[in-house]
Amino acid sequence: MNFICPNISAAEGRLFFAGQDVCSLAKEYGTPLYLMDENRIRHNCREYMSAFRSAFGENFRVLYASKANSFKQIYRIVAEEGLGVDVVSCGEILTAHSAGMDMSLSYFHSNNKTDADIAYAMEKGVGCFVADNFEEVRAIDVEAGRRGIRQKILLRLTPGIDTHTYEAVNTGKVDSKFGSAIETGQAEEILLATMALSNIDLAGFHCHVGSMVFAEDVFERSAAVMLRFIGEMHRRHGFVCRELDLGGGYGVRYVETDPYLDIAAKIADVAETVKACCEEEGIDLPKILLEPGRGIVADAGMTVYTVGTVKTIPGYKNYVSIDGGMTDNPRYALYESAYTLFCANRMDEERDFLSDVVGRCCESGDIIQPKVYMPSTIGRGDIVAVCTTGAYNYSMASNYNRLPRPPIVMLRDGESYVAVKRESLEDLLRNDL
Amino acid sequence: MNFICPNISAAEGRLFFAGQDVCSLAKEYGTPLYLMDENRIRHNCREYMSAFRSAFGENFRVLYASKANSFKQIYRIVAEEGLGVDVVSCGEILTAHSAGMDMSLSYFHSNNKTDADIAYAMEKGVGCFVADNFEEVRAIDVEAGRRGIRQKILLRLTPGIDTHTYEAVNTGKVDSKFGSAIETGQAEEILLATMALSNIDLAGFHCHVGSMVFAEDVFERSAAVMLRFIGEMHRRHGFVCRELDLGGGYGVRYVETDPYLDIAAKIADVAETVKACCEEEGIDLPKILLEPGRGIVADAGMTVYTVGTVKTIPGYKNYVSIDGGMTDNPRYALYESAYTLFCANRMDEERDFLSDVVGRCCESGDIIQPKVYMPSTIGRGDIVAVCTTGAYNYSMASNYNRLPRPPIVMLRDGESYVAVKRESLEDLLRNDL
Repeated sequence: MNFICPNISAAEGRLFFAGQDVCSLAKEYGTPLYLMDENRIRHNCREYMSAFRSAFGENFRVLYASKANSFKQIYRIVAEEGLGVDVVSCGEILTAHSAGMDMSLSYFHSNNKTDADIAYAMEKGVGCFVADNFEEVRAIDVEAGRRGIRQKILLRLTPGIDTHTYEAVNTGKVDSKFGSAIETGQAEEILLATMALSNIDLAGFHCHVGSMVFAEDVFERSAAVMLRFIGEMHRRHGFVCRELDLGGGYGVRYVETDPYLDIAAKIADVAETVKACCEEEGIDLPKILLEPGRGIVADAGMTVYTVGTVKTIPGYKNYVSIDGGMTDNPRYALYESAYTLFCANRMDEERDFLSDVVGRCCESGDIIQPKVYMPSTIGRGDIVAVCTTGAYNYSMASNYNRLPRPPIVMLRDGESYVAVKRESLEDLLRNDL
Repeated sequence: MNFICPNISAAEGRLFFAGQDVCSLAKEYGTPLYLMDENRIRHNCREYMSAFRSAFGENFRVLYASKANSFKQIYRIVAEEGLGVDVVSCGEILTAHSAGMDMSLSYFHSNNKTDADIAYAMEKGVGCFVADNFEEVRAIDVEAGRRGIRQKILLRLTPGIDTHTYEAVNTGKVDSKFGSAIETGQAEEILLATMALSNIDLAGFHCHVGSMVFAEDVFERSAAVMLRFIGEMHRRHGFVCRELDLGGGYGVRYVETDPYLDIAAKIADVAETVKACCEEEGIDLPKILLEPGRGIVADAGMTVYTVGTVKTIPGYKNYVSIDGGMTDNPRYALYESAYTLFCANRMDEERDFLSDVVGRCCESGDIIQPKVYMPSTIGRGDIVAVCTTGAYNYSMASNYNRLPRPPIVMLRDGESYVAVKRESLEDLLRNDL
């Protein structure tokens, strides 16, 4: 059988993930269960790091976009692999900090940082703020002044690139809640206003064109727009850009029909464009940053469920109900995201039972994936695995229907360990009076 | 000004909810903040209870569908008003139980109850199981046998009614993950198989045709289908139905254009149909149950935010970013749900600034409501209130972007008290190792 990622395999009718028997893990830890393949996370980190090293020498930084999956152990792993992190809230800052992360390697994003957030981030020693707008720059300047420091920031700009990905994950076009547009002249205005502030060290710019980018030259086009702007700002205002953060967004494979991306080749292409643009603009090559999130963790994740009931409605449809759902994976409910599923204990059976795999929430929209081929013998007690759930599953999980969130169990070299404990029923009531 | 619910008003340029100044509450408790109007909850409970009493004497039960908003204090309030509850998980059972609820008045729903759930529910003394399918009935029978009890259940059936509401909230049609269809003959099969089980007391049937129902005769049509089936089963198999649960689903007003529903008149119409059908079928009137969730809590809720930034993109759009978002209210992201919004501290200003009110998550789809008219002076520090958020907001909230969930503050007779404490940053890490 052909699997979407090399960490998935099958033997003797059972599914294996990271070389371990998924059904045994389900039995040991219970379901629903998030599995994370630590070696795959490290492999993905190394792929990005070595691609950048080849392309840019040491003049780069790869930041793990931790909103994809934020828990203490993930920060330890990416830090060991030499990555910095992109954090978007005080919660992510505290999680990274508690994990012992060097916070000078953290970049604080978000389109809306409160004054309290800004103070908290400085308190915890966040290295760089990615300021979304001038109101935020001003608030950072005030807080930095109060503390007698000069805060390093990047300005978030929108290069006006439309990636043609799904609208909800498309953030680089001019009409966006994020950043300031180059096209409208607002980026230049904000740059000038920021340069005048005494407690701000403006190191450069950030942009992010969207998620799940497979298209040929999206990063090249946005890098070109940004570097043209940087060249202009240098000529007009003498501004020297030390850092250019190109955001995140390379696609990962959820289903067979998703293309493979050769990250090393992609980064080499981007580097070529970046260097050519710098030469053209007559500017020094800034430090190039990239923020993979999904690319680091998505295919390192798998979610494991137990089947509760299988329903055949003659003339209509079949339903396979599992013991989790939109609470642990809201991505189909939100975006109709595609996933690859298996019945982990029936890997050698024919898959000819077309069914909707649905969750246990009292809500019709609680669908994990419609139109999945399962073995026709599937029934209560069987194990269903959903692949590529390492990004935007645990991080987006809710307690809807008052369901506790599953644990995260890490797999490493044939062993397993708990990184996040299963939520207890008592946890759900902790703040109830 | 005309407000969608009588508990909303304005005076001296400020918004009032349940007679209390929303800006003062924001200052006292911080934002984001869920407010719940206790008197409105009680008013809604009483509206349903008195409508049922008029229509059915004492032969009825109103169950609060607590998945709409489940926290300890809400169970205390609805219990005081004489309602039972619909619970869908061990988490809801524990919450109701911890609140001192008489669990014999609880009905346990869900399309997928695990063996562990069934044992837990019996342990806590849940009065009635609403069994979704025969696998579940069998599992309930086994557990009841083990405990030497006879467990009361209802069977969930699908009457084949299409409500023409949004697909994700449409659950009464034949093609549904919920229940068993009358049309396909599966309902009768399951009834017969269930009647043969010795540890099951089959009290009757449940159906639920969908959410946000405004259409004229949806409940009458589904009641008629159910009672025709009940009559047939009585004639063919001698089955006596003691309870008929018609589910939930009456619509509430989110925006000006939503119609008003006269609940008393609606229930009277349903009662008329029910009585006529019983007479026609020659059967005794069963106890009629209804499960309002949204109808009890939606318009008793308001969410209060602080504005972080206002962005004008010339030629495109305006954005008002607030300090919450899809984490505390995912309903626009999930269903494009409509809401009514106000700038709570600028109620006397003209509203001519067309803007998208967006959240603070790093995600383009994080929209609370697009195309809202706000005062053009709106800016950082202003207070935005979203009305009718009492249902499916707190209960669906997540920690996406590692954001803590807001507290629930109850308003009662000019006073306020905390029912659910604000989640702390430390709470987010509680299960991290």
